[in-house]
Amino acid sequence: MNYCPHCGQAVELTVPPGDHLPRHVCRGCGAVHYQNPKIVAGCVPEYEGRILLCRRAIEPRLGYWTIPAGFMENGETLQDAARRESVEEAMADVEIGSLLAVIDVLHAHQVHVMFRARLPEPRYGAGAESLEVALYEEGDIPWNEIAFRSVDFALRRFLEDRSSGLERHHFHAIDLRRSR
Amino acid sequence: MNYCPHCGQAVELTVPPGDHLPRHVCRGCGAVHYQNPKIVAGCVPEYEGRILLCRRAIEPRLGYWTIPAGFMENGETLQDAARRESVEEAMADVEIGSLLAVIDVLHAHQVHVMFRARLPEPRYGAGAESLEVALYEEGDIPWNEIAFRSVDFALRRFLEDRSSGLERHHFHAIDLRRSR
Repeated sequence: MNYCPHCGQAVELTVPPGDHLPRHVCRGCGAVHYQNPKIVAGCVPEYEGRILLCRRAIEPRLGYWTIPAGFMENGETLQDAARRESVEEAMADVEIGSLLAVIDVLHAHQVHVMFRARLPEPRYGAGAESLEVALYEEGDIPWNEIAFRSVDFALRRFLEDRSSGLERHHFHAIDLRRSR
Repeated sequence: MNYCPHCGQAVELTVPPGDHLPRHVCRGCGAVHYQNPKIVAGCVPEYEGRILLCRRAIEPRLGYWTIPAGFMENGETLQDAARRESVEEAMADVEIGSLLAVIDVLHAHQVHVMFRARLPEPRYGAGAESLEVALYEEGDIPWNEIAFRSVDFALRRFLEDRSSGLERHHFHAIDLRRSR
């Protein structure tokens, strides 16, 4: 951030009075512009034991496989967001189920919230951000071609819990920042 | 948003190609500036059955009671954020426990994530954003003076679960947008 989104004057990085972290503060109007983690919502859609995966048509990780997931929008719930992303990326109308995983992705300033989901009918297809979409048996999941660590984590916990007959939720933190 | 934070040119609200919602797009550099929900992390600190509440010294809801909670920062986990807010608002060094509530606050573009927490020692005090901080027995909680609906929801679920010997998590949506 170089300029104030409100008034267009230059901002500087400084610790405001009473605060404890540097913020972008406008030299003109004095507005303080906070930057906070963004939420990615997604789900593991299941149809008769098989899992719906999407091969990414966009960067980052173009060509790698993921579950339907994306940035939550203002005005929707986490479940709304996970359902919408399944429609957009996999053309799949899923029923969102229980909470599966909450992953703090510290280097990316993101929190990933993943749910279990049911695909009632085997109807799906490649949305604009996917090269292909397919149902995978557990033994066929392309583990070496999974796009993101958070997706790998969510898929593994999903399968472990399913084999135990459980629907737990799992917290996890991923931090790829360089050590100082 | 009126100006591009990158280049300082004017932005306009328009639907970018391939998108489905209006975004702030820079007329100069073409950057698309997304606006997404922010995360508020908090906890219900418990000491020998009593609950730690803070009376707000700041707007909104100055003078009303709340649990320690605030905006999550980049580079911290949800649990880190909840713990930090307890230190800042209640000068309380808590141990964060299980997930209690996830509340989509649709009109505010926020997601509130509340945890159970343990206060190991009865050491606490009013931080800069609190007028006073106190331990409340369940029967003495000032329900008519609770600052936010999400806090009311979290406290009630906490107490219900505690009386049942459970540690469940609860989803909830609050929407005070005017109907169109």
